[in-house]
This record gives sequence, structure tokens and C-alpha cells, in this order.
Amino acid sequence: MQEKMQQYRNILSTELAREIKFWLDHSLDTEFGGFFNCLDKDGKPYDSTKHVWLQGRQVWMLSKLYNTTEAYKTKQVLEAARSGMDFLRSHIKVSDASNRCFFSLTREGKPLFLQRKPFSECFYVMALAEFSRATGDKSLFDEALNVFQSILKWAHNPALLGRPVLEGQTKTSSLAVPMILLNLIDEIRGYDQPNLFKLEAEWCVQQVLKHVSKDRKLVFETVGPDGELMLDTFEGRLINPGHAIECGWFLLNYAIKNGLSQDLKNLAIDMIEWSFEFGWDKEHGGLYYFLDSEGYSPIQLEWNMKLWWPHNEALVAFLLAYRETRQIKYFELFEKVLDYQLKHFADPNPPYGWFGYCDRFGNVTQRFKGGPYKGYFHVPRALYLCRNHLDALLQQN
Amino acid sequence: MQEKMQQYRNILSTELAREIKFWLDHSLDTEFGGFFNCLDKDGKPYDSTKHVWLQGRQVWMLSKLYNTTEAYKTKQVLEAARSGMDFLRSHIKVSDASNRCFFSLTREGKPLFLQRKPFSECFYVMALAEFSRATGDKSLFDEALNVFQSILKWAHNPALLGRPVLEGQTKTSSLAVPMILLNLIDEIRGYDQPNLFKLEAEWCVQQVLKHVSKDRKLVFETVGPDGELMLDTFEGRLINPGHAIECGWFLLNYAIKNGLSQDLKNLAIDMIEWSFEFGWDKEHGGLYYFLDSEGYSPIQLEWNMKLWWPHNEALVAFLLAYRETRQIKYFELFEKVLDYQLKHFADPNPPYGWFGYCDRFGNVTQRFKGGPYKGYFHVPRALYLCRNHLDALLQQN
Repeated sequence: MQEKMQQYRNILSTELAREIKFWLDHSLDTEFGGFFNCLDKDGKPYDSTKHVWLQGRQVWMLSKLYNTTEAYKTKQVLEAARSGMDFLRSHIKVSDASNRCFFSLTREGKPLFLQRKPFSECFYVMALAEFSRATGDKSLFDEALNVFQSILKWAHNPALLGRPVLEGQTKTSSLAVPMILLNLIDEIRGYDQPNLFKLEAEWCVQQVLKHVSKDRKLVFETVGPDGELMLDTFEGRLINPGHAIECGWFLLNYAIKNGLSQDLKNLAIDMIEWSFEFGWDKEHGGLYYFLDSEGYSPIQLEWNMKLWWPHNEALVAFLLAYRETRQIKYFELFEKVLDYQLKHFADPNPPYGWFGYCDRFGNVTQRFKGGPYKGYFHVPRALYLCRNHLDALLQQN
Repeated sequence: MQEKMQQYRNILSTELAREIKFWLDHSLDTEFGGFFNCLDKDGKPYDSTKHVWLQGRQVWMLSKLYNTTEAYKTKQVLEAARSGMDFLRSHIKVSDASNRCFFSLTREGKPLFLQRKPFSECFYVMALAEFSRATGDKSLFDEALNVFQSILKWAHNPALLGRPVLEGQTKTSSLAVPMILLNLIDEIRGYDQPNLFKLEAEWCVQQVLKHVSKDRKLVFETVGPDGELMLDTFEGRLINPGHAIECGWFLLNYAIKNGLSQDLKNLAIDMIEWSFEFGWDKEHGGLYYFLDSEGYSPIQLEWNMKLWWPHNEALVAFLLAYRETRQIKYFELFEKVLDYQLKHFADPNPPYGWFGYCDRFGNVTQRFKGGPYKGYFHVPRALYLCRNHLDALLQQN
């Protein structure tokens, strides 16, 4: 086991090094700052739009590597993060008063599109919090807290984001919001502020748990305000296995760090296991992108595609579950998912980098390494976190 | 040839009869009016949301069949159309003053979602114009003209639809708007008002032609305001072969009916032929949903899927091109597309109806017959128009 873990640790390290090299070599916009995130197979940008989620996430990831790993505590990494941070601070906001952030910007930083969702702001907060730790600039941390307060306000009253509230809409709870807020709180706290947003985190946990059906052994994306299942609508039947698995490890991580009950930890692991069991394609391997809880066809055309990030999340989730429980079955599931990923998503040829999209059968469908929703985030985060978990396991053994 | 055409005519007739029976048997909401448009393989609704595009299109199709074919000039067909029309008139509009129409409604007709696009209104106009001919109710035709005037206003100033205009956006022309307006004008004119909106139709033709690159032998979805290619953006490189083929037959149809130049007719046929040549999957058959003109991967995850409607449009386009030119190659392409469709989309088993979505390899990916974007429209329209073309050809031979 020790030897096997060491082998995996080396694989993850190599992949992490290749991944960071690919993005540092190709994504930096030395003229206008920030990052090209639409990168073709060979690293060449095929569009210069700057998608804000990915700009924020890349700043966060680079800062995290800088802050926590010897190998990446380099001027190059810090300056790359700074370039993204400066670009965002100059261009991301609709207005300082509103804290609303655009979804996409031109290469020069002019606004292209504003979503009526709070996710650009979430990834901006992650970037601010982690980058402030890299530079010691306290004003950036204050800005993170300031924007986060707005996000909390929107979470409780989404109408503030400008989407009209119409008479036929029923009140629902969406898994995406509380789960990302829980992760954001963890990121804002970092290693030095463990007591921030305690009540808010508890609210997130309660909201997340409304989506978990113990009877059905499923995690639903959309439920009623009190967790009621809405099985007569396609929205209410939607299962996103990767999302549910990610939510499971966010919750498990939170429960471990905050010494919460064994029951909650067990439930978080259940969320991961149930969602993997339901979402894994027994015939062709890989996790489906979307499923319908009752077996109808999802309306999402891409439902049976295999995307990189659900697999990244499963890697982290199973290794964390193994680290917590030492049940070998979780380590074996980690191996199974890593094996699928290395076979289908990791490009074995220079300049390396990972593909993001495969069809049901595991054939790459999009040759690019970066796109409007795939940047420098899920792949390096999973490689980084899993390497950390393996390091901890190797030390403890 | 005569015999072959007769055979195809019979196939199309049978499929049309099966299709109308499937939708009349399963889609009518006898309690609240309008149509269930999310119908599973067996016809059972799997969600009761009423998607307005499809409600309007179904009213149009039923009215068209009622107005122009002996077999479907029945009380049942008329009453089904009326049920949809009444439902829409009661619930579709945000306000009478604005003429804005919702995108989706609950089963009871309460508003669910409002798009910042003019397409709900377009299909409402089609429904009003054709249904007014079925009933002789002139006030409905006036309402069609009234809403159409609003659509024209929005076409020239999309900011009126409420999407914020942001500094980084460049002015572009989208193929979808002028092509649907051209088709709408044809539908408003019907057989009795051939001179309506002459200038507007000419404007549509000019706008459409900006999207046609003779050099590249391609029809681009998005170009600059004067037809400039925007090849450094994924948006500017986007090719939607089915859309371009549909646009080609809209233009050819318009040119034939209005006795326009042979050059314009030839160009319309070029649009069809180029788009088919570029869009047909030489390895596995079928038309791709999206392609990138320069060979990059489209960012749309579903780009390599085979959808029903591009093939429906190709059937109509090639048969019209054959009828116009009598070049056998167009008839052969009609045969090729019909063969692919019957093999992959038409369900040979009761209660019949067509599937809408296949993967690249032609496997059905969505088992439903109706969904948020697939209703009683493209399949019956293509079967109906092709049957008409074959009838005309058989008579002339």
C-alpha cells in the first residue's frame, strides 16, 4: 500500500507540474494582463474572451500553490497570479456600490456579458482571499469579505440579481448556491481565520442536507424550500453526479475541520458513494454529466458525455473518504477514477495539459484544453489536493 | 423516377399520418388547454411545462394542415388548434402594450420564464396568421400584424428586449433574425396577401446575404454589421449547417414565389449545397449540429450530435432545389437524407412519432419524442412540404 501510494503521489506530481507548465507557458496575456482561457490542444488561444470564473479560479489556484507548496513558491507563479488579480480588480465590477461582477470581458477588459447569477463574484472572492495571503495585502482580504457579504444577501434574495420573479415559478432550493458558499467560507477562513462565518456555514450545511434523500440514496440538484422532492418536473428529477460528489467532499472536509458529528461525516461519504454508484456508466466507464432520477431522458443534450471535472471531484472525494475512514474500498474507487482520467483526459504528449470533454464512449470530443468553462482549476485543484492527501497518508503510515 | 417519387410520397404520407396521430393522441391538455410538449417515447408527458415556441408552432402546423389538406380538414384538427390558440391568447403576453411574450408557462398558463429574444413572439405570429385563415377571424390576423410590427422594431434595436448593452460588445449580425423574419413574412402573406411587407422582406434578404461567403462557400451564423468575417472568435467561426440549409430554402422559396433573379436562386441553392457538404459527417453519416469554420472544436458540447431538425430542413431544401432545377443530384441528396432519418429518427413502433436526438454514431440519446425545443413542427412541416413538392412533381411529369 505504501509503495502504491508513493507511485500515485509521483504520478499526481508529474501531472501537476505538466499542468502548471502548460498554463504558465500559454495562458498569460503579457499585453493586457489576465489570462487567455480558451487554449487549443497546443496551447494557442483560439479566442481572446476572458471568462471571469476562470480568471478568478486561476488567481486562486496559483496563489494557493504559491502559499502552500515549496516547489511553486516562485516569483513566476506569484507574478502570474498578480497579473490576473490586477486585471480583475481593474475590470470585473459593474460598479463598486453593487459588487456585481461581469461574466466575461474582452481581452482588454471591456465588459461583454453579465449573468444574473452570483458565481463570477464567488470566484472573485476566492481569488481575493488567497491572493491576499500570498502578498499580505489586508485590503484585498477586506474586499473579499465585502463582496462575500453581497453574495450572502443575494443567496437569501436572488431577485436582487435582476431576473424577474414570475407568477408561475415555485420557490425552490438549488444545490449550487449553498455548496459553493460552504466552500467559499472554507477558503476565506484559510488556515488563519477558522471562526469566520460560523452561522452562515451552518446555514449552508442545513441547505445542502435538504437535497440529500436518504430514502432514494440520491442528491437532487433542485428541491422545494423544505427539501420536498419535485419528481413531476425534469428540473426536480435532475441528478448531476459530479456536482453531488463535489458537494459531498465539501461537506466532509467541513465536518472534519470543524470536528462535527460522525453522523454528518458518514452522510457526506454516503452522498459521494451514492452519487458515484448512480452516476457511473457501467457499460463504458466514466461518470455521466446528468441523469434523471426516475430514468427519463435528461433534457440536457450532453447528458451522457464524460466531463473532466466530475472525475476530478471524485478523485478528491474518494481519497478524502479513505483518509478519514481507511476503508480500502474508497482507495480502490480513487484508483478506478484516476485510471479512467489518465486514459481519457490527460494528454500524454507535449505540451501536455488535460482535455475536458469526452463522449459516452470516452473519445475526446473537444480538442481544446481550455474553454469558456474549463480553465486552470479543477484539474490542478484535484491533483494538488490528492497529492496533499497522499502525503499525509504516507506520513501517518 | 415517377414510380420512385410515388413511393416516397406514400412513405411521407404514412409518416405524416403517424406523426399527427401521435401528437393528437398525447399532447392535448383537455383540462387547461394548449399542449403538453414534453412527451416521452410512449407519448406520456414527463413534465407539464408549456414551452411557448412549441405551442405556437403546433397551432400553426395544425392550422396549416386544416387549411390546405383534405385529409386533415377535420373538426378534431381545428379544435386542437383552437385549444392552443385560446391558451396562448389568454397567457402568452407580458402585457398587451409591450407585445412581449413569455418563453414558458406552467400547465395552467402562469408565466415561468421570459427570454430576452424575440422568438416566442415570432411563433405566436405564425400561429395567429394561419389560425385566422382557418377560422376567418380577421381580428387574429390584425393581432399578428400588430405583434409582427413589434418584432421588426426589436430586430432593428435588440436593446429594447432588455439585455444590457455593454461596452465590450461589438455590433454583429445574427443569421437567425433575418431568416425567421423572411419566413414569417411568407407565412403572414399566405396565399392571399402576396404584397405585404415587401420592403421588409428585401431588407431580410440583404441581411441574410451578408452571412454568405462565396469565397469560403460557407454561411456564417454571426458576422459584422457589413458582413465582415470575425474569424478570431469562436462566435464568428460558428457554422450551423442545418440552420444555413433552412435559410437556403427560405430564400429559394422567397425567390421563386416573387420571381426574383436566377442569380439569387442559384445562390440560395449554393447555400444549401455548401452547408450540406461542410456539415455532413463523411464517416458516420448525418449532419453535425455545429462546426467551426477553421476546424477548431466548437465550444458547444453537443456539436457532433445529430439532431432531427437539420435533417428535416435538408429534406425540404433538396426537394425544392430539385423541383426548381430538375437536377437529379438534388433528388439523390433528398433520398440520402430521408434514408438517414428513417433509419435513425423515425420510431418504427407504435405509437410512432420521431425521436429528436442522436449521438455522432446515430444512436438515439434522448428517448423522448417531445421536449423543450422539439414539438409538433419540424417533422410534420418537412413531411407536409415534401409531400406537396412530390405531388407537384408527379403532376407535372
